[in-house]
Amino acid sequence: MNPNLFSATVTTVNGDSFSVGDQTQLFSLQSTSKPIVYSLALKQHGTNYVHSRVGVEPTGEAFNSIIELEKQSHRPFNPMINSGAIATTSLIRSENGISKLQLIVNYISELAGRPLSIDTDIFNSERETAHRNRAIAHLMKHFDVMTSDIEETLDNYFNQCSILVTTQDLATIAATMATQGRQPMTNKQLITPDHVTKTLSLMFTCGMYDTAGEWAFKVGLPAKSGVSGAIFVVVPGKFGLAVYSPKVDDHGHSVRGRLLVERLVQELDLNIFSLGTIQ
Amino acid sequence: MNPNLFSATVTTVNGDSFSVGDQTQLFSLQSTSKPIVYSLALKQHGTNYVHSRVGVEPTGEAFNSIIELEKQSHRPFNPMINSGAIATTSLIRSENGISKLQLIVNYISELAGRPLSIDTDIFNSERETAHRNRAIAHLMKHFDVMTSDIEETLDNYFNQCSILVTTQDLATIAATMATQGRQPMTNKQLITPDHVTKTLSLMFTCGMYDTAGEWAFKVGLPAKSGVSGAIFVVVPGKFGLAVYSPKVDDHGHSVRGRLLVERLVQELDLNIFSLGTIQ
Amino acid sequence: MNPNLFSATVTTVNGDSFSVGDQTQLFSLQSTSKPIVYSLALKQHGTNYVHSRVGVEPTGEAFNSIIELEKQSHRPFNPMINSGAIATTSLIRSENGISKLQLIVNYISELAGRPLSIDTDIFNSERETAHRNRAIAHLMKHFDVMTSDIEETLDNYFNQCSILVTTQDLATIAATMATQGRQPMTNKQLITPDHVTKTLSLMFTCGMYDTAGEWAFKVGLPAKSGVSGAIFVVVPGKFGLAVYSPKVDDHGHSVRGRLLVERLVQELDLNIFSLGTIQ
Amino acid sequence: MNPNLFSATVTTVNGDSFSVGDQTQLFSLQSTSKPIVYSLALKQHGTNYVHSRVGVEPTGEAFNSIIELEKQSHRPFNPMINSGAIATTSLIRSENGISKLQLIVNYISELAGRPLSIDTDIFNSERETAHRNRAIAHLMKHFDVMTSDIEETLDNYFNQCSILVTTQDLATIAATMATQGRQPMTNKQLITPDHVTKTLSLMFTCGMYDTAGEWAFKVGLPAKSGVSGAIFVVVPGKFGLAVYSPKVDDHGHSVRGRLLVERLVQELDLNIFSLGTIQ
Repeated sequence: MNPNLFSATVTTVNGDSFSVGDQTQLFSLQSTSKPIVYSLALKQHGTNYVHSRVGVEPTGEAFNSIIELEKQSHRPFNPMINSGAIATTSLIRSENGISKLQLIVNYISELAGRPLSIDTDIFNSERETAHRNRAIAHLMKHFDVMTSDIEETLDNYFNQCSILVTTQDLATIAATMATQGRQPMTNKQLITPDHVTKTLSLMFTCGMYDTAGEWAFKVGLPAKSGVSGAIFVVVPGKFGLAVYSPKVDDHGHSVRGRLLVERLVQELDLNIFSLGTIQ
Repeated sequence: MNPNLFSATVTTVNGDSFSVGDQTQLFSLQSTSKPIVYSLALKQHGTNYVHSRVGVEPTGEAFNSIIELEKQSHRPFNPMINSGAIATTSLIRSENGISKLQLIVNYISELAGRPLSIDTDIFNSERETAHRNRAIAHLMKHFDVMTSDIEETLDNYFNQCSILVTTQDLATIAATMATQGRQPMTNKQLITPDHVTKTLSLMFTCGMYDTAGEWAFKVGLPAKSGVSGAIFVVVPGKFGLAVYSPKVDDHGHSVRGRLLVERLVQELDLNIFSLGTIQ
Repeated sequence: MNPNLFSATVTTVNGDSFSVGDQTQLFSLQSTSKPIVYSLALKQHGTNYVHSRVGVEPTGEAFNSIIELEKQSHRPFNPMINSGAIATTSLIRSENGISKLQLIVNYISELAGRPLSIDTDIFNSERETAHRNRAIAHLMKHFDVMTSDIEETLDNYFNQCSILVTTQDLATIAATMATQGRQPMTNKQLITPDHVTKTLSLMFTCGMYDTAGEWAFKVGLPAKSGVSGAIFVVVPGKFGLAVYSPKVDDHGHSVRGRLLVERLVQELDLNIFSLGTIQ
Repeated sequence: MNPNLFSATVTTVNGDSFSVGDQTQLFSLQSTSKPIVYSLALKQHGTNYVHSRVGVEPTGEAFNSIIELEKQSHRPFNPMINSGAIATTSLIRSENGISKLQLIVNYISELAGRPLSIDTDIFNSERETAHRNRAIAHLMKHFDVMTSDIEETLDNYFNQCSILVTTQDLATIAATMATQGRQPMTNKQLITPDHVTKTLSLMFTCGMYDTAGEWAFKVGLPAKSGVSGAIFVVVPGKFGLAVYSPKVDDHGHSVRGRLLVERLVQELDLNIFSLGTIQ
């Protein structure tokens, strides 16, 4: 990818939207799909069932760590790391003859407000090289924390990561979370407020992996990054923000994206625990 | 301690206060002193210096873990676990001829709005049995993350943990954090808003140790518990809450305290990411 | 398996052989195949190449641990645990049009002194349930410590584990190691003395997994156990011993096999560091 | 220390002795004292009691690791690493009014065949800087695996590490182990054969710390190194070898000492599992 690509969109809870940069540029969701599919799992199964399979604790380990699975309960620590996200995707069930994958695509499309598609080249590439994710899936199968078919689950997971969006799409999804689940353009309540609260909570404590603490400390807003260079941030009650710039740091976060969010939060005093927010 | 003891106080940002139960019962701060002394360290040294010595990441380990210190940077993960709290206390410096310990007592007294004292029996008991904390201190000395005198630092730490308060005192401290640093009775600005934000952020992600994620998920408010049976919770912009009941669970959290907070948050819709809060 | 089955054979360096119990009972090699195939890898590639892929250190972890692979070099700790054994099997190359698997079977047959065969039911059963071994293989592929085809390698590994032997066969293999590589019945030098020394060294320090230290302490002889209930022991310069009894303990060692070996070593003063051995 | 210092001594089971280099040079025992004091603990308490306090397994961690103590049983893995050696020293009891330390000095002197003394400068220096060992001691006290007084135990441990010897002394101690406990000059049986066997077994599997496996693989003889630059090696039934050269590698082993031992073992075919040894 051209490392100079850059795009950012703010979408308010009223549905107003402002973009700068390469705003038509498509990129794959990658890990930004994790909290979204997690909210779909909550919708299908409720909080209790989902969290009988995956925990809610930050790990202190990298996003793709396999170590934690050998420890204690063998349940993935949380749905924001690879193991927990694969376990979450494995829970999605087909409805009314619509396949699991189609359900995921439909759900994310409705959140974004337009039909989204999958980049099959990205899907094929991930599928061939994802030995670590395969290792994770087999280990979860071994520990009986994943009961679905491994190949189907991994295919669904690689497909959800390969869904193409713009920052406009991702900001609309973030804005839907900022309104506690009401899509700001269609006004449809797509997620229940309680499920949004749960999703934002996990994004806040675990969304930025082993730098989640630092993010909470410096930014203080629920966010999720993807290795494609995307970050989306939810400012509850106010707006959703999405940034895209492909150059990522050692933790897999967009370098420019991170700088923009940190700057914006500081200038607008958006930290969830700061004065600007609580008054 | 009598396990049936129970006390709870709410103090609003306007200084109004409501208590129930054994409201005159004194108990020692224990780990609830950690975020308070942390805010004093920020006041004396600023954020950058303090965090050159102690991190901001949740650990996934228990509050008294020593394992993490052997890993990577040897810097304690955060100021809410024992290693990080001892490192934080080691940073407090005397001012104008006032000893480090007296400064800590004065600072917490000013936050509580009345002069507090130390339970020397508790101090002596902790001092004699704290082999794990001594191990932590020596290991930090070995790694040069703690440069102060070990015995003096541990004595100050055990003393800060042995300061006696009521839920009224602790709720006032919490309310001071809820106003971004203005003590609601004296109207003095005792902590800068930025330092309150930092303190609340660390309480949110790390305050409840290896159940911090679960607490954020279920309660969604900055809080800190102490093994004496105390929990204090900050509802930013609204009120501070303190609960005391001596029976603690395996993680060192007050059993009744936890139940009360979970119930209250649900009934009043106080989760920081929920509708009641953001509108 | 009938837990009352029991068989033991001693084969001396002169080729004399004594058996007791169910001596015609066939059982699968399982992990006792690991040091044997390791010696074949040494023959094909030499010590340096083999150990560029797999280490020589005991782990302190269980035989099927995956944790160690995430740490440091990502190279399996040693060829006696599953990860290292799969990596070792992946190194075997076909020769003169003979397939890798056939080469392994031929080699072990020559050591045992008769043609051995594979139990396909056991092979199929292992193949279907071995999610942990699959996880290990994918993780090694991810870290580039295994470069061969995963499915082919795992099939070869499951097949080598499913080779059927009697204690007579296994004792002959052990006796071949006791003579520094000369098969005592055929007098063929099947392994070079240096490769035998290397193999015995790894059996001694790592052969009994996380109880290797205890085994060295109590028994003091190179040995390898398999989860089928087999143990073979090498008394250098004297004889090979094989025991079979299907009931295994928590570490995967035959309960009766272990007792017999411990008793025999004590009565005959066979510990490699004891008086009987060194004089 | 002058890194060019070098001394080596071989002492046979008959008491013949050959030295090269700076053979009068004194150096402190450091960790080479560990197996020696361990054999004294066996003499005073027997194998079962000693190993109710300290294990027999190699760790895969560095010599001064504290991590393992937090895991599982909290018992140190083995007597060759710092935690296990401190625990072992804590078991030594005074006899007939002779202090614990004096007993240790007397015992090692009798093994060496001459009265040894302690370098108090080294002792004082270790005592002041040993924060990691203090951390280990406090953690063992916390877990109740060490019940003796911490300061007295550490003082005894630092003193035993500060005993001054020549390679001649250390080779005589090694030769005493090579004869299964009979001091080759005085012909006194100072250690029982069984305790020698136990000591050699632990030196073999754990004596060279996290390179114990590599040492067993390349050298194949029981050995122990000290950070002062000393290594002693036991060739059971044949001779004891001691080398001293102060430059140590990252693992704390003498660089030249290691090279000399590796060369000698290869040329004389001394590996315990090799042809030269077993025939």
